[in-house]
Amino acid sequence: MEIALITLAAGQGSRMKSDLPKVLHEIGRAPLLAHALASTRALEPARVIVVAGHGAEPVRKSVAKFAPDAEVVLQDAQLGTGHAVAQALPALAGFEGRVIVLYGDTPFIRPETLELMTQADADVVVLGFEAADPGRYGRLVTDGAALERIVEFKDATDDERAITLCNSGVISCDAAVLQDLVAGLSNDNAAQEYYLTDIVAGARAKGLSAQVVTCDEAETLGINTREELARAEAQFQARARAEALADGVTMIDPASVYFALDTYLGRDVVIGPNVVFGPEVTIESGARIEAFCHLEGCHISRGATVGPFARLRPGAELAEDVHIGNFVEVKNAVLAEGVKVGHLTYLGDAEIGEHTNIGAGTITCNYDGVFKHRTVIGANAFIGSDTMLVAPVTIGAGALTGSGSVITQDVPDAALALGRSKQVNREGLAAKLFSKLRAEKERMKKGS
Amino acid sequence: MEIALITLAAGQGSRMKSDLPKVLHEIGRAPLLAHALASTRALEPARVIVVAGHGAEPVRKSVAKFAPDAEVVLQDAQLGTGHAVAQALPALAGFEGRVIVLYGDTPFIRPETLELMTQADADVVVLGFEAADPGRYGRLVTDGAALERIVEFKDATDDERAITLCNSGVISCDAAVLQDLVAGLSNDNAAQEYYLTDIVAGARAKGLSAQVVTCDEAETLGINTREELARAEAQFQARARAEALADGVTMIDPASVYFALDTYLGRDVVIGPNVVFGPEVTIESGARIEAFCHLEGCHISRGATVGPFARLRPGAELAEDVHIGNFVEVKNAVLAEGVKVGHLTYLGDAEIGEHTNIGAGTITCNYDGVFKHRTVIGANAFIGSDTMLVAPVTIGAGALTGSGSVITQDVPDAALALGRSKQVNREGLAAKLFSKLRAEKERMKKGS
Amino acid sequence: MEIALITLAAGQGSRMKSDLPKVLHEIGRAPLLAHALASTRALEPARVIVVAGHGAEPVRKSVAKFAPDAEVVLQDAQLGTGHAVAQALPALAGFEGRVIVLYGDTPFIRPETLELMTQADADVVVLGFEAADPGRYGRLVTDGAALERIVEFKDATDDERAITLCNSGVISCDAAVLQDLVAGLSNDNAAQEYYLTDIVAGARAKGLSAQVVTCDEAETLGINTREELARAEAQFQARARAEALADGVTMIDPASVYFALDTYLGRDVVIGPNVVFGPEVTIESGARIEAFCHLEGCHISRGATVGPFARLRPGAELAEDVHIGNFVEVKNAVLAEGVKVGHLTYLGDAEIGEHTNIGAGTITCNYDGVFKHRTVIGANAFIGSDTMLVAPVTIGAGALTGSGSVITQDVPDAALALGRSKQVNREGLAAKLFSKLRAEKERMKKGS
Repeated sequence: MEIALITLAAGQGSRMKSDLPKVLHEIGRAPLLAHALASTRALEPARVIVVAGHGAEPVRKSVAKFAPDAEVVLQDAQLGTGHAVAQALPALAGFEGRVIVLYGDTPFIRPETLELMTQADADVVVLGFEAADPGRYGRLVTDGAALERIVEFKDATDDERAITLCNSGVISCDAAVLQDLVAGLSNDNAAQEYYLTDIVAGARAKGLSAQVVTCDEAETLGINTREELARAEAQFQARARAEALADGVTMIDPASVYFALDTYLGRDVVIGPNVVFGPEVTIESGARIEAFCHLEGCHISRGATVGPFARLRPGAELAEDVHIGNFVEVKNAVLAEGVKVGHLTYLGDAEIGEHTNIGAGTITCNYDGVFKHRTVIGANAFIGSDTMLVAPVTIGAGALTGSGSVITQDVPDAALALGRSKQVNREGLAAKLFSKLRAEKERMKKGS
Repeated sequence: MEIALITLAAGQGSRMKSDLPKVLHEIGRAPLLAHALASTRALEPARVIVVAGHGAEPVRKSVAKFAPDAEVVLQDAQLGTGHAVAQALPALAGFEGRVIVLYGDTPFIRPETLELMTQADADVVVLGFEAADPGRYGRLVTDGAALERIVEFKDATDDERAITLCNSGVISCDAAVLQDLVAGLSNDNAAQEYYLTDIVAGARAKGLSAQVVTCDEAETLGINTREELARAEAQFQARARAEALADGVTMIDPASVYFALDTYLGRDVVIGPNVVFGPEVTIESGARIEAFCHLEGCHISRGATVGPFARLRPGAELAEDVHIGNFVEVKNAVLAEGVKVGHLTYLGDAEIGEHTNIGAGTITCNYDGVFKHRTVIGANAFIGSDTMLVAPVTIGAGALTGSGSVITQDVPDAALALGRSKQVNREGLAAKLFSKLRAEKERMKKGS
Repeated sequence: MEIALITLAAGQGSRMKSDLPKVLHEIGRAPLLAHALASTRALEPARVIVVAGHGAEPVRKSVAKFAPDAEVVLQDAQLGTGHAVAQALPALAGFEGRVIVLYGDTPFIRPETLELMTQADADVVVLGFEAADPGRYGRLVTDGAALERIVEFKDATDDERAITLCNSGVISCDAAVLQDLVAGLSNDNAAQEYYLTDIVAGARAKGLSAQVVTCDEAETLGINTREELARAEAQFQARARAEALADGVTMIDPASVYFALDTYLGRDVVIGPNVVFGPEVTIESGARIEAFCHLEGCHISRGATVGPFARLRPGAELAEDVHIGNFVEVKNAVLAEGVKVGHLTYLGDAEIGEHTNIGAGTITCNYDGVFKHRTVIGANAFIGSDTMLVAPVTIGAGALTGSGSVITQDVPDAALALGRSKQVNREGLAAKLFSKLRAEKERMKKGS
């Protein structure tokens, strides 16, 4: 059976107090919407429709990045979840199979839960959860697994309010049935909105079957405020940290390590306190990341050591046994086996050969104000401290640059390149200069 | 009715195990005393008296900084809270109105609580709290809101010990009445101290009225050990973080962001993990502060991005869309719109024009060993990597400095300034040098 | 009475999912084994035997470092704790006294607990603990302090399973008795292993006495997974932080400060958030460590200030009132009183005289690709920004180096050393260059 997804992502989220559409707020460095879409990947859906509204343009861009096969449809006016689904249905004309309706601000639903929903044998399947504190959630009135009806809190009797099985809002339904039921929705209620939830009553009225599938309450966590966002981030991080520990990663303080949605750490990787992973980081077994590192878009190979105080930016590729030390930034640069970059260095748009040593204070001057240029350094070279590599430039294998040199021309293999002035010592001059300055200060003090 | 405050700040705090007077230990980067004084500001007190004792001189300096209108009186010998208040009263001779006595080591009393105290209609008003664990606190024996008497724990009957309404020590009293009651205090007790608390008994003996105003126990938290200080800091931070979230700030991990008493963050500001705010930081809406930043005394405008690994020090002013990257320090420098400072840079005592790009490794050499000097850079300039700007110096608009240049003279608008030696390549010399050094090492190994 | 210790350290710890032997995983920057051995030091044991197996070679090296007097014996095949002890006993031939058997993966047993075990008057003494959740631990069946027998969970009756006094596995026994009892162990059980625990039954069968000494459950915490390792680290850190607070250290957020086993902080030391201590750090009273510092193998004297963003590596010695600022690395360098190193500097293999000022961007070029060399700077010198000190080199007292200089020769006292090119301004050339580059970009855009 084929699956189609409709993900509702049109809300403004006014309680976020933000100009950003709610579904684009991030956890694990990826938008809520990306999490919601990621959880559905295991279903291999034939079609994915995202309903955008507030901030439709940035939502469209985000979908293009995180789910390029998804289609975005527009809900011009926010007239309720039923109306939102109605906007998506034309795009599913002719689709035969099951449709699941999800929410872009509900990032934690597990693939296993969605799998259960697709397996349930009923015309309409509703995802429910046992609420620790049911509060004002809608209640699911059931008879065994069969769903009798959904009662809104405000309409519920005392007996119904005692029910703890609550409605998550996630629904699965046969496509043709959904078309039919949504067409029959009415907005005859206080808010004058079309509620998707009402399709259950519609289905029952037509003698169709409805069923409940349940999940953990934590899966259904929706996000409406910055505090809920921070708590969702904490929940995401706790799970990511636990998984890494279980996989054989050592973290001195797991609570101070921040994962992205796609961080990959091999076995026996050791992570110091206070390490931040941005998107797209992979680290091979046995690498060591010291405290205070900020890594994104990079690959770190076996035996490499990084930090403390290192920043790896997108395109940093570290081969085996590379060493990156403190106050070092690497961006869009490939470092071959055994390269050492110990201190205070910026490597951008570069390629460095095996076992080359980059001295402290080295900078690849990759930007001329308009274009970016590449620096290529051969194997076994030795770049002296404070060497400026004015790109485009190539340093040969086994070459040496004198410290403080500005290298503007290529350096042949095995050559020594120097670009610096001869040192001159002027005897006694420091003493004279300082006594003059101090006398001036003295005069100023008296004058004031 | 006019209000006068007496803040007791004379204690040594021996359990702090510190040479610093207790009230000068800090939370939110401000002394406890500053917190205690800040909470009274809404009352618009006509007079503020601080009673100093241990470490009177540093206390005096701190008062001058945080409450310049306050007067400091000295308590030479620490003979109890009643004695401390007696030292303050001469400074209030002739004052007509209400006096509130507070404690410099009790930083969390809310302005609303003090407001309630000033509104209470009684000769003496005592601030009480319902204690979760009353322990050895003095108990307030009441008849409705009326305060019958205060019983010290050691003198209390079992029935009295069952009372959970406890004495915070904070008292409000008509000025003339307070003069009279304090004059009547005795030190006829085990510690031979004058207890301010005893004025309640004194008042009742004279047929005056006493009343209790209550507050949350958390407000009355006093600080006696480093652990309590750390807990108070945590309490302060938790409140500051919650307020920022409620105001529409995103924090990836609120628990790793450290606020100062006066931090101001606009809506949609995004803060990465591990950010430390020192005093006097304001950040406008929509700015982004990456992980591992340390900010104090600075202003950051809309759309600016800072960090990771950036340090902004007092006097750093970032206009809109400024970008500060990693391992960058900015101090006493004004950066106009769109300035970019990407990497490994120190900008001190500087002024940078719009859209100027500061290359990696740039340093304003602002200190000559005696004086500090200014660097001024025009708009749309391009400062090459590793440029030393030897201040005082001015770089014109649209000017360019070659990387590795030491700039000691002014550079005109649109000019190129270079100060570097020509590069020389010596073929094969690196290979010769290294083989010599390696041979030497080999010899040494054999020799050892 | 003399004491000998047998520490079992042969296990692989497969649940750690690691290539590192379990006992070499670290907490407080020291291997579990080092913690286990450190807790026994107060007993002044005459002999310490470590039984290694998996990863015997690295275990041997670690023992050589953390307990150089200990002997390592090899257990070739892992046939149970009884077998492990049997491997150690030949090394104790002739030893008269008490033997305690401990575990290398149980780091928290307190010296006081071991002391109690040595004082107990019985042939065999077993360390037990009251378990909050006894689960599948072996139960200690007692009659008063006398130990009747140990029952494995799987063999226990319901009544025995209700016992909450559990077996830690730590045992103390007279050396000769232990030889005898271990010789009598059998591996007639499901796992075909020799269990040390069985010596209790053996002792009772011979009419010998057995007794229980109890300790807190937290002391017996063994480590089997990365998560347990992380929790043990947290437990270690919590204790270290509490001790530092009690000793008069201020920490703005204790939970973000990471101690090593041997960190020493004096009274009134102030530690900002996010500070990491590696091994062998001592800090004198009143020094201040700002946020984001990484310190190891260093000594910091009274009144010194360090950070934010400072890294001190082994051999960094800071005298009184030294100031280390941001993005500064110091390694194997002795800084005399009042030295200031404000920004973006690497000092390695150096010696700096009193009150010398090191400018931003200074680098000691201490490595020539083969050898490391020393830099010596006199008192009251002023090293200009971006000075390269090509070691070996000596800068005299009161000397001055011009910013951007590469110093390859010694500088006399009071001399000014310069090594830089004269600045040349080329009028209008920047404008020309940029307009050319921008035109090129324009062409490329059109071309594409």
